[in-house]
Amino acid sequence: MKTRLTERYRLAHPIVSAPMALVSGGRLAAAVSAGGGLGLIGGGYAGILGGEPDLEAEFDLAGTEQVGIGFITWALAKAPGALDRSLARRPALVFLSFGDPRPFSGAIRASGIDLACQVQTLSHAQQAVEAGATVLVAQGTEAGGHGGGRSTMPLVPEIADYLAQRSPATLLLAAGGIADGRGLAAALMLGADGVVVGSRFWASAEALTPAAAVERAIRATGDDTVRTRAIDRVRGVPWPEEFSFRVVRNRLADQWAGREDDAAAQFGSLAAEYAEARTRLDFDMMAIVAGECVGLIKDRPSAGSVVIAMAAEAERLLRRGPDGW
Amino acid sequence: MKTRLTERYRLAHPIVSAPMALVSGGRLAAAVSAGGGLGLIGGGYAGILGGEPDLEAEFDLAGTEQVGIGFITWALAKAPGALDRSLARRPALVFLSFGDPRPFSGAIRASGIDLACQVQTLSHAQQAVEAGATVLVAQGTEAGGHGGGRSTMPLVPEIADYLAQRSPATLLLAAGGIADGRGLAAALMLGADGVVVGSRFWASAEALTPAAAVERAIRATGDDTVRTRAIDRVRGVPWPEEFSFRVVRNRLADQWAGREDDAAAQFGSLAAEYAEARTRLDFDMMAIVAGECVGLIKDRPSAGSVVIAMAAEAERLLRRGPDGW
Repeated sequence: MKTRLTERYRLAHPIVSAPMALVSGGRLAAAVSAGGGLGLIGGGYAGILGGEPDLEAEFDLAGTEQVGIGFITWALAKAPGALDRSLARRPALVFLSFGDPRPFSGAIRASGIDLACQVQTLSHAQQAVEAGATVLVAQGTEAGGHGGGRSTMPLVPEIADYLAQRSPATLLLAAGGIADGRGLAAALMLGADGVVVGSRFWASAEALTPAAAVERAIRATGDDTVRTRAIDRVRGVPWPEEFSFRVVRNRLADQWAGREDDAAAQFGSLAAEYAEARTRLDFDMMAIVAGECVGLIKDRPSAGSVVIAMAAEAERLLRRGPDGW
Repeated sequence: MKTRLTERYRLAHPIVSAPMALVSGGRLAAAVSAGGGLGLIGGGYAGILGGEPDLEAEFDLAGTEQVGIGFITWALAKAPGALDRSLARRPALVFLSFGDPRPFSGAIRASGIDLACQVQTLSHAQQAVEAGATVLVAQGTEAGGHGGGRSTMPLVPEIADYLAQRSPATLLLAAGGIADGRGLAAALMLGADGVVVGSRFWASAEALTPAAAVERAIRATGDDTVRTRAIDRVRGVPWPEEFSFRVVRNRLADQWAGREDDAAAQFGSLAAEYAEARTRLDFDMMAIVAGECVGLIKDRPSAGSVVIAMAAEAERLLRRGPDGW
């Protein structure tokens, strides 16, 4: 497949791996790029939470492959210096999500590096265009991890229409609910130039995801995920109100899902217990951060083989033409 | 486009109009069928709420066009006789949504009429297959009106995989977030045999939708809808807990969105006021029942022209092949 995304970044396939915090290390990013996509390192909270990987080491692990890096925008605002250190590594792009990108766009663009903005609403898209983003990523609520409330299927064409009118040179990627070639082909039909894939790479060999988490996700169906604000509140991570957290249901999620008000009243109450559960990899307690497409995930293949299989399936679908479905 | 749906019902295009309560009368259903799709009459609450249209009259309005009829399953259970009267009109199919279809499937299948089951989860899909449905409709949360929590993009391929294993002869349609040819083409890529379209026909010339509601929807973006359980509670319509109601934000929605517990405590408190607002077509109060794809809707064309334009756009996309996106 040839799209504006493959042309701009000289990719074999229009597939980008999501910069998942604590999951997307340099090894995963490099494997995705080696497979013909574009791998992104998860810069996560830019170090403000503690216990996060050393980004310099992750860039080193990526070696000579072209990779990008992503940050949680509201956290980056509290970590002066993290962006400059990343720009010095000359990533293919800086991917910002969850907050106003405009305070950072000047430095990114001045360095000659592309800005990609992940957006969850049409109004975020307007902000990202103002920030001068080269790439917009329309993320639907079906995505794993943090996200908004709108769904991929109607969000992508609505943002495509907006860009066609206001900023036709801006590339558009679809994220949320895409785990195979069917999702990739569908995203192109909706007006995207490619896709950002999270959960499928979260459950790939090179991801930092613990084996026990992937095993639980493989047993889950798409009915088993839930989007909640309660978990961040009780564990004391200060996410802005407009973003919630999609996880595979476990004991903690069941206990708190839907109890946003209770959770706010107990802000931070579980922080120590949660941190301790992380050291034990206790997935009754620790969040299993995957999206609705866990129902499409049955194994843990290498990331390169995911890229190749996804592209091959999409190409086959795109060659079928209008008849014989 | 040729699909198993167009073959089974001898349609020019794989497009079905949703059986929207109080919106999808016989005139709309006939217009969709005349345009080459399959129009469904909205049987809604099967008369149990009062103020609903006379289904016999709506079948008469559909004239000689092939049409189907849809019911809210939990309401049909309280309206003995409504199903038999509909079966006597020999619809192309009976479309059931929101509740266990199994108590009705015997009568429908015994009459030789197809059963279509709209499902919101994989577990609903399993129930629908047990009911012997000929058609499953996977409805995403982005849909307008009542629905569940899963999104179209990952729900459709997951149910497609389930059917491929367990019931390969069952047809699958996608619903939720589909308002144009992009959505139709994407749905085929995801594994559907066609689409069920609500909001786009809700805002068509032949729909029973009041002009003032359509005008508000045309001004809205997809960011302006909300899914809530509160409105049904305060207006006193006994919807099962698992289904919520997507509406375009207005004064009533803003007042109650997210306040499910308050609303439950005041069950029925607004029923009279709401009924009165309906007589005045007061859309600050009365629900504007459309989905996230309101952001793709800018006019109120005839339903037949919607069918034709949607099919033409999808065909053009499906002919593009893998390169040059």
